[in-house]
Amino acid sequence: MFNESMVKRGTERSVIRELFEYGNARKAELGEEAVCDFSIGNPSVPPPPEFAAALREVTERGEHGYSSAAGLPEVRAAVAEYFRTAFGIPMSASLVYMTCGAAASLVILFSAALREGDEVLVPAPYFPEYAVFLEQAGAKLVPVPTKDFRLDLSALRAAVTDRTRAVLINSPNNPTGVVYTAEELRGLARLLEEEDRKKADPILLISDEPYREIVYGAPSVCPMTVYPDTVVLYSFSKSLSLAGERIGYIAVSPACKDAATLFDAVCGAGRYHGYICAPVTFQRAAAACLGRSADVSVYRANRDLLMGALSDMGYSFAPAEGAFYLFMKALEEDDEAFSERAKSLGLLLVPSKSFGCRGYVRVSYCVPREVIERSLPLFRALMAAYRA
Amino acid sequence: MFNESMVKRGTERSVIRELFEYGNARKAELGEEAVCDFSIGNPSVPPPPEFAAALREVTERGEHGYSSAAGLPEVRAAVAEYFRTAFGIPMSASLVYMTCGAAASLVILFSAALREGDEVLVPAPYFPEYAVFLEQAGAKLVPVPTKDFRLDLSALRAAVTDRTRAVLINSPNNPTGVVYTAEELRGLARLLEEEDRKKADPILLISDEPYREIVYGAPSVCPMTVYPDTVVLYSFSKSLSLAGERIGYIAVSPACKDAATLFDAVCGAGRYHGYICAPVTFQRAAAACLGRSADVSVYRANRDLLMGALSDMGYSFAPAEGAFYLFMKALEEDDEAFSERAKSLGLLLVPSKSFGCRGYVRVSYCVPREVIERSLPLFRALMAAYRA
Repeated sequence: MFNESMVKRGTERSVIRELFEYGNARKAELGEEAVCDFSIGNPSVPPPPEFAAALREVTERGEHGYSSAAGLPEVRAAVAEYFRTAFGIPMSASLVYMTCGAAASLVILFSAALREGDEVLVPAPYFPEYAVFLEQAGAKLVPVPTKDFRLDLSALRAAVTDRTRAVLINSPNNPTGVVYTAEELRGLARLLEEEDRKKADPILLISDEPYREIVYGAPSVCPMTVYPDTVVLYSFSKSLSLAGERIGYIAVSPACKDAATLFDAVCGAGRYHGYICAPVTFQRAAAACLGRSADVSVYRANRDLLMGALSDMGYSFAPAEGAFYLFMKALEEDDEAFSERAKSLGLLLVPSKSFGCRGYVRVSYCVPREVIERSLPLFRALMAAYRA
Repeated sequence: MFNESMVKRGTERSVIRELFEYGNARKAELGEEAVCDFSIGNPSVPPPPEFAAALREVTERGEHGYSSAAGLPEVRAAVAEYFRTAFGIPMSASLVYMTCGAAASLVILFSAALREGDEVLVPAPYFPEYAVFLEQAGAKLVPVPTKDFRLDLSALRAAVTDRTRAVLINSPNNPTGVVYTAEELRGLARLLEEEDRKKADPILLISDEPYREIVYGAPSVCPMTVYPDTVVLYSFSKSLSLAGERIGYIAVSPACKDAATLFDAVCGAGRYHGYICAPVTFQRAAAACLGRSADVSVYRANRDLLMGALSDMGYSFAPAEGAFYLFMKALEEDDEAFSERAKSLGLLLVPSKSFGCRGYVRVSYCVPREVIERSLPLFRALMAAYRA
């Protein structure tokens, strides 16, 4: 009687959110200590101090009216200026569209840029909601294997077909924590340029980078600096610890072929999905903190504590270079069974099946340090259970 | 090369937003006094004082993390409690989905409840984005004539077909300002119940009510009290003057057939469009102000001043019982030409063509009083131009 596919999506929910809801329910029932919840990327470090000050100033002005559909002109100008100074990209405010967070950025851009049957290459593992968002745009997610979780250019080249319209990258990566190097991105750019010569229209490089500032080694490289036909999707959820406030943007590279037309399509898709005018208070407050981030050293300390202890226990991982995820090898091939076993001990770890690869779990370490400390005996018990 | 239909939607934009952007550009160029902008429903009265206090308290807590997909449990519970006390509806928190504003409420509910080819009856004139949002759900908007802008039950009955899945009402109405009476709604309910007897599944009554509290006579009736299969779509944009903050909700009547399944579909559609977790600060602050509204007496005074003066000049209108719109008869049949002529005088009035009827303009009087005062000589000049 209703839309069956929506009922299905609503009852399945996302595996991550399912675990998160389970954890909330257990905590409500049995107290905070009932579980060690490593399920969701909900930042635990408070926003940077500048943010609280900016938010206070903005809310005291009491301006809550509509902005233009694409966002407040001064906010779009500030984002463009940030691209100029931070990355040397001659960004124009007219190519910046403020969105209601990362999911909105993805949905709008996919609807704008892709057509029925277009193929999008996505290095696996990947954020599972990509599949939902690409499906709504009528496009096909083509998972491409990675090599030790890094870009595998031969695999990417082999996956290109006549229908390939875009490559979607996510660095720092969710779920692996890998950060692509400048060298890796230049290699990808060369590959795309070669393929572009065989095509009427260039392949679009879509860079989903909500974790841009959360890196522990060399800073992230802006892909716009290596390849012209690039669109950056950004969210302030992770950098400013604002996951619940839904604020981000789409920035189309000025070097993109038909950039203005793509931006028109972005405006059309925003309208189509009911997404015009991102929340204005957070547009203003976020624009005052461009390039700032929560105290990443806390995440680094969490990572070091967790990774050190788990290594000692015999666990292994993908290179944890950024974001706040450890991608840990499960102790059996069936990652769902492994996750269930961990859950029975009170450890909430997301099985890798939903990320498009098998045999791993994602451990979100954006949690209070005491949760990590409390979890260590449980991880030890989990290891012991498999060794028994 | 991109999605053509999105490019088209992006370049056409909405007529209302087009006028709003034009007004902003003129003001930026020539100063505030360059135009009298009656184009958009951007509340001019500040939020009620309780709101500023609630927002201060919420922001000081500094909690910006994700909520559950459907919203914060305490906020959903507060909305359910409000339905119980204000309308006597035994609402459950499990049937309340917090959304990122009215547009999100519409998009999500349409995707959830409607299937390809379903017909939705909409009394005309109506909010033009309904057409865009129904189209994305694959459904067909069937405009139904009204009688002096009130529900015309014979016309509605004549429009029912085998494919009729829902009736979409909007009271207080945008663009007319009409508020449906309890008697009118009971008549509609009787009609639907008669038609339901001929169908396997009941027709859904979708009530889009962002203007619920902005009424100048008898208060609005909750349609859930007269018809079981009802879904209420709400936004705090107008009542709390938060148009730019994007916060609202979907409430499925507990009396709705298969209410829980419809709610699952709502969750699925929220996910599909990337809409999970409405902005949490505004979830919390709005929940603290349920049933409150900005000072409606200011809008009433605006209406009285404008309507009185325009009547004296010889203009006529739909009954201005609620919301903050005067639906004014154009001085020629071609409302677009009339709007252009008004624009040349600096008066921004939205032509009725985009609302699905001809020969009128919408005058949004949620503006500072001085704009109305400044506009009166221009309205007089407009009338004189037609009488000349």
